[in-house]
Amino acid sequence: MKKVVVIPDSFKGTLSSTKICEVVGAKVKEYFPDCEVVLIPVADGGEGSVECFLNALGGKKVYVKAKNPFFEDIDSFYGLIENGSTAVIEMSACAGLPLVEERKNPLKTTTYGVGQLILDAAAKGVKKIIVGLGGSSTNDGGCGAASAIGVKFYNNKGEDFIPVGETLCEIERIDMSSKIDIINGIEIVTMCDIDNPMYGPTGAAYVFAPQKGADHEMVKLLDEGIKCLSQKIKKDLNRDVSKVPGSGAAGAMGAGMMAFFGSKLQLGIETVLDTVNFNSVITDADMIFTGEGRIDCQSLRGKVVIGVAKRAQKYNVPLVVIAGGADYDIDEIYNFGVTSIFTINRLPEAFETIRYKSMENMEFAVENILRLIKRIKANK
Amino acid sequence: MKKVVVIPDSFKGTLSSTKICEVVGAKVKEYFPDCEVVLIPVADGGEGSVECFLNALGGKKVYVKAKNPFFEDIDSFYGLIENGSTAVIEMSACAGLPLVEERKNPLKTTTYGVGQLILDAAAKGVKKIIVGLGGSSTNDGGCGAASAIGVKFYNNKGEDFIPVGETLCEIERIDMSSKIDIINGIEIVTMCDIDNPMYGPTGAAYVFAPQKGADHEMVKLLDEGIKCLSQKIKKDLNRDVSKVPGSGAAGAMGAGMMAFFGSKLQLGIETVLDTVNFNSVITDADMIFTGEGRIDCQSLRGKVVIGVAKRAQKYNVPLVVIAGGADYDIDEIYNFGVTSIFTINRLPEAFETIRYKSMENMEFAVENILRLIKRIKANK
Repeated sequence: MKKVVVIPDSFKGTLSSTKICEVVGAKVKEYFPDCEVVLIPVADGGEGSVECFLNALGGKKVYVKAKNPFFEDIDSFYGLIENGSTAVIEMSACAGLPLVEERKNPLKTTTYGVGQLILDAAAKGVKKIIVGLGGSSTNDGGCGAASAIGVKFYNNKGEDFIPVGETLCEIERIDMSSKIDIINGIEIVTMCDIDNPMYGPTGAAYVFAPQKGADHEMVKLLDEGIKCLSQKIKKDLNRDVSKVPGSGAAGAMGAGMMAFFGSKLQLGIETVLDTVNFNSVITDADMIFTGEGRIDCQSLRGKVVIGVAKRAQKYNVPLVVIAGGADYDIDEIYNFGVTSIFTINRLPEAFETIRYKSMENMEFAVENILRLIKRIKANK
Repeated sequence: MKKVVVIPDSFKGTLSSTKICEVVGAKVKEYFPDCEVVLIPVADGGEGSVECFLNALGGKKVYVKAKNPFFEDIDSFYGLIENGSTAVIEMSACAGLPLVEERKNPLKTTTYGVGQLILDAAAKGVKKIIVGLGGSSTNDGGCGAASAIGVKFYNNKGEDFIPVGETLCEIERIDMSSKIDIINGIEIVTMCDIDNPMYGPTGAAYVFAPQKGADHEMVKLLDEGIKCLSQKIKKDLNRDVSKVPGSGAAGAMGAGMMAFFGSKLQLGIETVLDTVNFNSVITDADMIFTGEGRIDCQSLRGKVVIGVAKRAQKYNVPLVVIAGGADYDIDEIYNFGVTSIFTINRLPEAFETIRYKSMENMEFAVENILRLIKRIKANK
């Protein structure tokens, strides 16, 4: 093989996509020393996304002071890729759950720092900003981030304030006119892999706030707040984003990115594939390896494997999927361009046991796939 | 692919080798409709071995009355292959554990019926008899089988009798001169995959009698009996078979086959490979599939996979191993001629759960291997 592309999703809870790239890439080099190996760890928008983009494309990490979820200054970061023309931001870098530790409280937390990162990148003259949602500690509908770029929120006394989860219903009026200029004209893409609307039983608060520390009463309050926000957005910005799939992502940050930043929401995998120019990367590839923790019917609806498969099919490149598990009733996947699926479970063991062997099991699976490919190619 | 050979061991407790042949063969035909598929289910000598040989080579099943472990007449059987020139006998067909059900008692049970089957085959003019050990309910050192072909055992009163487990020490003298003529000149090969000696802590009684219904006292008695027998064989037949690896197999039937029938003990896989003329079968094969329930360090010492691998290597045919599990530290296996090993565990599940999905998991694994092969061959 002359060129192999490795573009795996992470195996949730066991292996990062960067680690998988490392393992698969090394094995390919072992069996095909002269092969060009392109490693593209897939970012899902959550923690580690900046690292993924930098690993795939090169670039540099920019360190910058920004507010954490409790409005305290911390050292945060984002990535610059494509010769500094594109910034990659993961919201968890300043609004992430690990940053609040035992102080979890979605009534109080803010996305203000995310706005600061966006502003910093804008000031550097980037043409495009990719914002990854996921892993947030917030439920502020992106009002904090909006405030950082100059959007004003007024209460019924005409005072401006920075809304957080518990004060969203105090918003009387939203003023976009004060939004800082340099943001304008920058293409902002938000990576978002979930479909939830802003509020209601499948909305941001009900589905995600409990893991951010909300009890049942708090969830009701937060849901009410997000609903208030959606009404004010409708009234003052003349947009209804409340039911757009993904608007409820990351404490309704999805809605905020659309309403205040003019961003579109896009599947993580499509963002990655576009950003790395995947189509041109694979035109001369002999084989693509992708992977996912578990291939199930969810996988058939727009997750990493299918995103990659569709393009592999278009360019007629064989695609091998390596997975931690493959559910039954996924045969449809072959129609999307998947050549073969191999699972890494070397022994019949339950997940609680086998998860700790993911790396060596992955190596073993890949090694045997490569040995077969090499042998067949040698015999051709 | 023009020719594929499928030669799996059974997956103990889940899939018979015949079933695996069926599944793999059908999948090969699905992906390579014009491919010649040779199916060789491997017999290990135990229950189902006759069926395996008949499936692999064609031939006919001969039904014959013979004694069960309690000297009662039952309908038993053996196989005739190679135009009737070779007989295949599994001892479990008349001395097997399932035949005694709740009457398990290795003090009383006999291999007499096995001798009758051998005699019946000999009378049909076969040139070779393959006897599969395994799954026996007996601990008579093959004295029952020997009696059936005319060997005489005398007690200290000069009376001849048919020894069973509890009366082996009553043997005073063995007389081979009365052995029925027609046995002479027939090549007898005994399939035996275990290494145990006749008696002692790793002998027939201590290791295998408990599963045949023996308690601790009984085991001691049986072990003593087998030791007596070995001494009489040494004295009267002038042979010491007591420590030959495998002499302790099937209640020391291994020893009896050597001493009374002039048989050699041979690994099951070697017997199968020789019988099916494996070397000439694979000379023009594009791929061999083999498999085993679990590849472990045992597998490296002469089990099915290694037996097949050595010949695959000799004739330079790619060999894919499909397994229920693959232990760590088996890398040496590649040196023996194994191209790749794939495990069938579609989901991370413990054996108790996953065993019931063996067939569909096997199908899934094979399907994906074949898809990969086909795709690579198409691209060559």
